[in-house]
Amino acid sequence: MLQLSPLQKARTHYVPQVLEILQEMEQLDFVESAPPEPLELFPNLSPFGSLMAKRGKALNFQPLQIGVVLSGGQAPGGHNVIGGLFDAMRILNVESRLVGFLGGLAGLLKNKAIEITEDVLQSYRNQGGFDLIGSGRTKVETVEQFQDALQTSQVLNLDGLVIIGGDDSNTNACFLAEYFLQKGSKTCVIGVPKTIDNDLQDGQVEISFGFDTACRIYSETIGNVARDALSAKKYYFFIKLMGRVSSHIALECALQTKPNLALIGEEIQARGKKLSQVVDEIVNLIIERAKVGKDWGVILIPEGVIEYIADLKSLIKKINKVLATGSPITSKLETLSQIQEKVSFIRSHLDKDALETFDLLPLLIQEELLLERDPHGNVQLSQIETERLLISICENQLREKAKKGEYKGKFAAVPLFCGYEGRSAMPSFFDTNYCYNLGRLATGLIARKKTGYITTISNLAKEVWRWRAGATPLAHMMHYEEREGKSKAVIKKAFVDLKGAAFHAFVQQREGWRLDDCYSQPGPIQFFGPEEFSDLRPITLTLLHGND
Amino acid sequence: MLQLSPLQKARTHYVPQVLEILQEMEQLDFVESAPPEPLELFPNLSPFGSLMAKRGKALNFQPLQIGVVLSGGQAPGGHNVIGGLFDAMRILNVESRLVGFLGGLAGLLKNKAIEITEDVLQSYRNQGGFDLIGSGRTKVETVEQFQDALQTSQVLNLDGLVIIGGDDSNTNACFLAEYFLQKGSKTCVIGVPKTIDNDLQDGQVEISFGFDTACRIYSETIGNVARDALSAKKYYFFIKLMGRVSSHIALECALQTKPNLALIGEEIQARGKKLSQVVDEIVNLIIERAKVGKDWGVILIPEGVIEYIADLKSLIKKINKVLATGSPITSKLETLSQIQEKVSFIRSHLDKDALETFDLLPLLIQEELLLERDPHGNVQLSQIETERLLISICENQLREKAKKGEYKGKFAAVPLFCGYEGRSAMPSFFDTNYCYNLGRLATGLIARKKTGYITTISNLAKEVWRWRAGATPLAHMMHYEEREGKSKAVIKKAFVDLKGAAFHAFVQQREGWRLDDCYSQPGPIQFFGPEEFSDLRPITLTLLHGND
Repeated sequence: MLQLSPLQKARTHYVPQVLEILQEMEQLDFVESAPPEPLELFPNLSPFGSLMAKRGKALNFQPLQIGVVLSGGQAPGGHNVIGGLFDAMRILNVESRLVGFLGGLAGLLKNKAIEITEDVLQSYRNQGGFDLIGSGRTKVETVEQFQDALQTSQVLNLDGLVIIGGDDSNTNACFLAEYFLQKGSKTCVIGVPKTIDNDLQDGQVEISFGFDTACRIYSETIGNVARDALSAKKYYFFIKLMGRVSSHIALECALQTKPNLALIGEEIQARGKKLSQVVDEIVNLIIERAKVGKDWGVILIPEGVIEYIADLKSLIKKINKVLATGSPITSKLETLSQIQEKVSFIRSHLDKDALETFDLLPLLIQEELLLERDPHGNVQLSQIETERLLISICENQLREKAKKGEYKGKFAAVPLFCGYEGRSAMPSFFDTNYCYNLGRLATGLIARKKTGYITTISNLAKEVWRWRAGATPLAHMMHYEEREGKSKAVIKKAFVDLKGAAFHAFVQQREGWRLDDCYSQPGPIQFFGPEEFSDLRPITLTLLHGND
Repeated sequence: MLQLSPLQKARTHYVPQVLEILQEMEQLDFVESAPPEPLELFPNLSPFGSLMAKRGKALNFQPLQIGVVLSGGQAPGGHNVIGGLFDAMRILNVESRLVGFLGGLAGLLKNKAIEITEDVLQSYRNQGGFDLIGSGRTKVETVEQFQDALQTSQVLNLDGLVIIGGDDSNTNACFLAEYFLQKGSKTCVIGVPKTIDNDLQDGQVEISFGFDTACRIYSETIGNVARDALSAKKYYFFIKLMGRVSSHIALECALQTKPNLALIGEEIQARGKKLSQVVDEIVNLIIERAKVGKDWGVILIPEGVIEYIADLKSLIKKINKVLATGSPITSKLETLSQIQEKVSFIRSHLDKDALETFDLLPLLIQEELLLERDPHGNVQLSQIETERLLISICENQLREKAKKGEYKGKFAAVPLFCGYEGRSAMPSFFDTNYCYNLGRLATGLIARKKTGYITTISNLAKEVWRWRAGATPLAHMMHYEEREGKSKAVIKKAFVDLKGAAFHAFVQQREGWRLDDCYSQPGPIQFFGPEEFSDLRPITLTLLHGND
């Protein structure tokens, strides 16, 4: 059994701040706007417009039955959504019952669940992790799966199903809501925006929960190693940050810690940068810093940056084509024993552009590209550790530059990955309160029989009492996207907005961070003490609305 | 220029708690015990016995001139030692001057220094890092170096030289103190015990500063990933912890976080464990946990654990002998092109014991052992990433076990290194206060013309007001040790005491941590709020004196 630390125990007793509108749950009602336009794919959900919470007439509620699912990767605050759900249900009717499906949507499909009582919940309040009920990556896609989900909700007589997840999980919530309506089920489906990557944002969804805490954990580490770099004066930290698809985390952490360089995937893509250009940017930084006597530095690298580098993606495609399973070239390659021979052989089958990129790669990576392929014969790009790849290429380049007398310095690089430790940390002040209110709001929506919505609390940059509660119809967040060759309706991922205020603030400052060391050390998350360093917001969030 | 975060700014205003005896600096005097026995190597220091601080007659002090050096790796609290020195000097005489030598002892030898004033110091108070004056790894060993050190202290007319460092730096402080006395110099030399590894402990030196903060930073991360392991239910975290020579950090972090397994180098050595036995311990854990449905876990690995594994050390020695530069075997090896051929060839030159160990290693590591050697032809053991080595061996073993039907589980391992981020973090409550008082104490020793001492504050497990100040003669901490083939007088490194209370507490609990998940999440260091989670001590320190 988990042995709670003194701080964990103290946090279990914390009572989150509750929005005024979410305090009197019996009176919580909603005003609905007119829906934008009819949606063919969601005939039943189509008529629902956005909701804004308002104080209505207090009603007497029958006991509510709600099921909750945690879906996808962990994000700090998940347990607080459940806490908010639970407390609000009990206010509406003390006989209400909350069940938690185990291991994500798979638990819903198989009706594997536990009842969540105050006893169960108590030691999870304001804690990190998803371990109360676990999570999973199952999606509901087949007809059988939809039937199973319906069956479970009927067996348990659910008034509501709350799906806490990212873009894919909320896409699922939308389809489930439509299906349940179509089948005449009374179960309302509500989504809650979760993901440390913060790529589930859309209009009213200003931020997904967990992003704040994760960025603070990463920024604590980045600030600490930056200070160490400045003290030891001999290391370059290449810090990879979580975020495979978007670079929100890298941007936020850069604004918090002021590294010498931060790569932003979306910018690299927009400018069509090649691998050599990305490498040049780093190598030039190192050379320029060496000229002013600085052989140390801090570089932030989003986990997914490789996916944004055009020529690298195209090289991989070409190698995959050349080395298709069963091709004569593949057979010939397998007869060669020396890695050097293999490399020469494959080079002879690449065009000029591809060669230029290929030759930048260190031998070890070239070898991996030729050898380590998945069962379909495809190169596994995600297996390559980006921070180590970049270190290796920079080492080669700097060696060449040194030979030509263009670089006089010592390059000692340390790879670092800020990843898993941010996903299950104790939620920050912001995530603690945000999540708890999201939970209460979800209960309120179900109590008023709203379905197909994602909970939206806005004006989040401001003090908690100024936050505004509402809900956005999931169906109107959907768009069509090509996935694995098929056009699918999904919730759009939110990328870093290169015209947005946060990116603009970054661009304005970053030139000054290159040679001067402006490192900021945000330090550990504080749960006590003055608001100026306990009640914080992500910088990207505060910049979201400019001078609102 | 560094841009301080809100928390950093707040911390600059924190006023450390000062021991009562260190408040009235003018009255601070010392009682001296009789020295243990005469020391041939240190005729001038030999007569000095241990000191205990006492309240004496208040004196009027002339302005003091003190120089301070940070030596070796960063440890949280270094700036606070300097702050304590400075404030105490100014109390004794407002005209006193503190200079900081730049870049470690090299700065002393070359007289590269800055004057430390309140203006300079202000933004470094209670901050992490060593960047105010930097650090370095230069040792004072040659006659010329001793002369240079003396010259600098004469040019600057130093009353005192304070060397903040680990065992090697304090060894240097001792020799400098002896040399200065011998040359009739008035410069008193005082050492301050610093190292996050905590391997500089000796009687009155209960703990070296920085250890507490570093362990809290690492335990925050370990607790977070443990919670993530428990939530995701599919990863084994192999966490390498700083500490090349001793396993104090691993032991402390284990007690704080309760992982499923923690390797302790000293125990492995004492039991003469072989690599296969260490691997078995991990593999058996994984198999047993898989049997109860748990394919996740947390394993702590001290950075230096390889050095403690007897057969691995002996294998390396044998390979080094076989592959000595210029040997016919080396020449022959170089003619072979295939790695498989090389491996077979080298195997034919190893004895049975060496082969057993060699065959456990993954091919990639075998290759590294054969190819990547230093200029003397020796294998670079420290280049191998221990956590990745162990993962790789365990993967192989588990694959074999699965074939035999002895293991049914999924093994996905994540390597993690808790390292640099602990060295320059903002010091914890304990390190903030401990270091500041160490600094004041050092000034007091110099003011009363004490030399060749290390500052010792004891009873540290208790509240600050119950701490006791004193000093231990460095010369009496020295012992003879073989280093690079020569017998040298050095300060003994402190290893984990396998008969001590901390290790005993660990042994008592660890069986319970294997299959059950008892993970504790200490969370981020708190600088505010109730003492039960801000004013903490390392668990190993609280256990040091048992029921004192």
